[in-house]
Amino acid sequence: MTDTVAFQGIHGAYSEQALRQFFGNSVEVEPCETLQDLFAVIQSRQVKYAIMPIENALAGAVSQAYELLMDYDLLIQAEVYLHVHHALVTTNGQKIEDLHSVRSHPQALAQCDQFLRRHNLKPVPWYDTAGSAQDLATNPMPGVGAIASELAGELYKLDILATQIEDVTFNYTRFLVLGHDDPPKGEYNKTSLIFATRHRPAALYDCIGEFATRGLNLTKIESRPRRNRPWEPVFYLDFEGHWQDPVCQEALARLLQRASFVKMLGSYPAVKTGNETVGI
Amino acid sequence: MTDTVAFQGIHGAYSEQALRQFFGNSVEVEPCETLQDLFAVIQSRQVKYAIMPIENALAGAVSQAYELLMDYDLLIQAEVYLHVHHALVTTNGQKIEDLHSVRSHPQALAQCDQFLRRHNLKPVPWYDTAGSAQDLATNPMPGVGAIASELAGELYKLDILATQIEDVTFNYTRFLVLGHDDPPKGEYNKTSLIFATRHRPAALYDCIGEFATRGLNLTKIESRPRRNRPWEPVFYLDFEGHWQDPVCQEALARLLQRASFVKMLGSYPAVKTGNETVGI
Repeated sequence: MTDTVAFQGIHGAYSEQALRQFFGNSVEVEPCETLQDLFAVIQSRQVKYAIMPIENALAGAVSQAYELLMDYDLLIQAEVYLHVHHALVTTNGQKIEDLHSVRSHPQALAQCDQFLRRHNLKPVPWYDTAGSAQDLATNPMPGVGAIASELAGELYKLDILATQIEDVTFNYTRFLVLGHDDPPKGEYNKTSLIFATRHRPAALYDCIGEFATRGLNLTKIESRPRRNRPWEPVFYLDFEGHWQDPVCQEALARLLQRASFVKMLGSYPAVKTGNETVGI
Repeated sequence: MTDTVAFQGIHGAYSEQALRQFFGNSVEVEPCETLQDLFAVIQSRQVKYAIMPIENALAGAVSQAYELLMDYDLLIQAEVYLHVHHALVTTNGQKIEDLHSVRSHPQALAQCDQFLRRHNLKPVPWYDTAGSAQDLATNPMPGVGAIASELAGELYKLDILATQIEDVTFNYTRFLVLGHDDPPKGEYNKTSLIFATRHRPAALYDCIGEFATRGLNLTKIESRPRRNRPWEPVFYLDFEGHWQDPVCQEALARLLQRASFVKMLGSYPAVKTGNETVGI
């Protein structure tokens, strides 16, 4: 097993940007076509780590990411926040006024809506952001551009006509780094887990009370339908703390008494956002 | 304003299926290219209702749907659960053994992974499920099929080679019907709202306590990053009950005292799933 890191998408994908932000530019990377492939290569230890988007992702992969976390037994190593910037790219020295339409993933197009309107460019949905850049490089079309990362523009040797063209500047995607072993404890840690409640009123309230009453801040909670178990939700929960801390161990033990099941996704060094003392 | 109902996508989209399941086959419909367009046509009262996917959707539109609910002032009229079935479609009388590759939205391809492997078919990502059917009808390609709804197959006059090809049978998408006025109270109702907590520990716990301690079951909770307000989460919450019920009014009044803001999305007749007494 090498220290290779896998990501989903083709070269130039936002996932590769997040990977390079965290692991640096010299790390070996392995692109995977689907999120299933990503989990398969790390489960079989062909790579040491994998990175995947979990919140506010462009590719709509998020719900599938949660299901895969449930299906596999991997541990979260770290979280990475990528500030997503979109660039307008094209071929053959065309200028922005030469373009009539622009391809990209529907969510990227939506995020650059005002820019496209201002320049009178028709949005053309494509299955992937980096894919729209690669396809254009392979088959240049007069009057056609693509919205992708600057990295994708450079990798596919396209002309970068404009950068940071997104309407909303606060556009972050949260990624998780996955691996097999418990990572070293950091200075500031989060713990992620999945659980289901037993069938009784106020069950969720009682479960999160085990954290709230011990001063353990939640940073994320989400209920999701449980696959193949009609209408029984599972909960994805992040809280500030490490499983080795005595107060966390107490809360986790109490949660186990109340829950129908608990699946630990790991304790890991987390990113300081300046909002640590707030909690939910 | 006619009784037209708008949906996002082209004819044959799963959203149109959900629309027809709820409103019947004789209703006038208006396809919209993007979710932004959908909200624009209903806000300007060009249509009376709109329907959109909110959970477990194929098109990855869900996070955007939440942001639009926050931006616009519409009221939820009803919820619709669509049991999503995928069909394999193609052109020119080809049989399944004539095919080498199949186009569809990446999530639809993922949901039919075992079927595709069994028949040795290469998945080709496309920007949209119904779009993959329409594009194939417009430009037939030897050896190529698409995964879309049976409705899309019929609408675009394609050959339907196989139905219900999804690996997981429990594949539901929840849709919301949006409108301008408060809908009539049903026998079983849900209320949806968005809120943010004030900055203090256990704030979420205290907020949902207002429901839990009054026996009002939550059926959904989700924290999401707040756009343009770094790291301040907002919560999307559904609970069983109607704002006209005294116990709900009491809980809502208390929530208002605790929250930084509350945005009502409406009380509406809900679908009975057999899990009503469970709650979270």
